[in-house]
Amino acid sequence: MLINGLTDTSISANDRGLHYGDGVFETVRRHRGHLPFLQRHLARLTASCERLAIPLDLTLLQQELSALLSQAPPDAIIKIVITRGSGGRGYRPPRESAETLRLLQVHPLPAALRVDPPRETQHGVRVRLCHHTLSTNPATAGLKHLNRLDQVLASNEIAGYSDSDLDQGFDEGLMMTADGDVVEGIRSNLFIVREGEVLTPDLVRAGVAGIVRGFLLERLPAEGLKVTECRPGMNELTAAEEVFLCNSVFGVWPVIKLVENATVHSWSIGPVARKAIELYQTTLTAHDNSLQV
Amino acid sequence: MLINGLTDTSISANDRGLHYGDGVFETVRRHRGHLPFLQRHLARLTASCERLAIPLDLTLLQQELSALLSQAPPDAIIKIVITRGSGGRGYRPPRESAETLRLLQVHPLPAALRVDPPRETQHGVRVRLCHHTLSTNPATAGLKHLNRLDQVLASNEIAGYSDSDLDQGFDEGLMMTADGDVVEGIRSNLFIVREGEVLTPDLVRAGVAGIVRGFLLERLPAEGLKVTECRPGMNELTAAEEVFLCNSVFGVWPVIKLVENATVHSWSIGPVARKAIELYQTTLTAHDNSLQV
Repeated sequence: MLINGLTDTSISANDRGLHYGDGVFETVRRHRGHLPFLQRHLARLTASCERLAIPLDLTLLQQELSALLSQAPPDAIIKIVITRGSGGRGYRPPRESAETLRLLQVHPLPAALRVDPPRETQHGVRVRLCHHTLSTNPATAGLKHLNRLDQVLASNEIAGYSDSDLDQGFDEGLMMTADGDVVEGIRSNLFIVREGEVLTPDLVRAGVAGIVRGFLLERLPAEGLKVTECRPGMNELTAAEEVFLCNSVFGVWPVIKLVENATVHSWSIGPVARKAIELYQTTLTAHDNSLQV
Repeated sequence: MLINGLTDTSISANDRGLHYGDGVFETVRRHRGHLPFLQRHLARLTASCERLAIPLDLTLLQQELSALLSQAPPDAIIKIVITRGSGGRGYRPPRESAETLRLLQVHPLPAALRVDPPRETQHGVRVRLCHHTLSTNPATAGLKHLNRLDQVLASNEIAGYSDSDLDQGFDEGLMMTADGDVVEGIRSNLFIVREGEVLTPDLVRAGVAGIVRGFLLERLPAEGLKVTECRPGMNELTAAEEVFLCNSVFGVWPVIKLVENATVHSWSIGPVARKAIELYQTTLTAHDNSLQV
C-alpha cells in the first residue's frame, strides 16, 4: 500500500475522506501485468476530482502507480482512493488547498476470476432485488465518490456475496430508488435487451457511471446494436429478453435469475450478453501474448 | 484525540469509514465542563449504530469520553466518530465483526460562541439558498452518518462560513432536495412559523434528525406552541412569519435574511425564535453555578 508515495498502512484521523466521504475512488483490474482499462479509469478519476474541486496531480499519481505495480502480482485488483486530505472547519474545505490524499492498494484477484472464462460469465448469475434503496441526487449522480453507505447496507442483503457460490446465495444485488427506478447492481451497472433494443439506466438521478458501462456504450453500436439510456422500472426489467451486469473487475455477468421477494424471474443467456462478454474479454486479454509483466 | 482509548492521530487506511462512509458521528458541545445534551447524543448514536448494525460498547465509549474530557478545556466541541472498522470484501461488512472504530476528538469552541449571547443569536443570521441539492433516501434519512459529501459541496457556496462575519458572506446555507423540498441547513435544522403554527421539515426523505430539533419538538409544546412536521417548499418558507435554525453547537439562530439567487427575503426575530433561544440557553447553562469542571 502506498500513501502519497510512501509505504504506509495508516492515514490521518483528520482525513476528510473519513469524516465526510470527501473523495472518490477507482477499482482497476490488472490482468497479466497490464491494466487494460486504465486510461478510462484515469479519465473518470480526473473528471470526478475536477467536479469536486479536489486537486489531483495525475503525473505524480501515475508514478506512484508504477512504483506500486512493480511490487504487485501480475493479476490483481488495484484500488485508488483520492480524498481532499485533512483540514478545513467542519464541512467546508480549507481555503488553501490541503494536500490531496492518494491511497493506492493492491488486493488479490478473486479466485473465481482466475478461471477462464469465469463460471459466472459462462453460466450466468443469481441476483436479488435489494430492499435497501439507492439515494438519489442529480448533483452527484454518476460520480464514484466515497459516500457508499447504500452499497454497504444493500450488500448485507445478499449472503454469499463475492464468494460466487451459486448454491449459497446471490452473486449480486440489484438496487432501485425509492421511486421504483431500477438503477444498477450494488457494484455493477445494468443492461437489458427489450425487443432487440439495448437499454441501460441513465444515471441522471442515481448510480455510478461505470467503466465497462461506458466501454459498452461506445463499442456495442459498432456491432450493429443501438444502445439507449432510459429509466426502467421493474416492469420493463422483467419483460426484458436479456439482462446482464458489468463492472471492470468481473467484466460481464449475464443474469439468469432475479429473486424479487417470493417471485423468481428467469432469463437465458442471449446474444447481446455474449457479444458484451466477447468485447470485454478481447480488451482484457489483448496483450496476453506480449512480454510486459 | 483518542482512538479506541489510545492517544493517537492516525487510523488504518483500510477503515470502512474512509472507504465507504460506513459509520456515524456526533458533535457535542462542552460548556463550562458540562455536556448538557450528552444523553441525547448518546441515545442517537446508539440508535444509529443499531440501524447500521455496528456494534457499539457504550460503557467503553463513555469511559474513553471521560478520559478525553479530563484533558480537554471546559468549553470545547467534542467530535465522536464511530465506524464499522476495517475488513470485509468490498462493500460487504465482514462476517465476523471487525473492531468498531471509536474516534474522539476535541476541537476549540469557535470564538463567536464565547460571547454571551452570541451575536448571531442576538441579531440573527444571513443565509443563502444553496444550489447543491441534498440526496434523498427514506432508508437512511435522519441518520447522522458519514456520507456528507452534499454538505461539503454546499458549504463551498457560502463564503465566510463558520467565520460568522455578517459583512463578508453567509452564516449558513439552506438546502433543498432536487424536488424542491426545503429540508435543513448545511449543519443545522430548520423551523418556520406560519400563522402562529411552528413547523419543521419531516426528514422522511432527507436530512439529519438533529439534537436541538428533537429537544425543541419536545419542549416547545409545554410553552403552548404546537409543532408540526411537514414538507415545506420555498413558497411556504418565504410566507413564514419567523424562520430559525438550530444545532447543538450554536444553539438557535434566527434567520433575518435569505438570499435566493438575486432575491432577498427578510424576517425580524420573532417570539418563537426567542422562546427557542431561551430553552436552549437555559439547558446549556443549567449547571453554570455548579462546581464541576
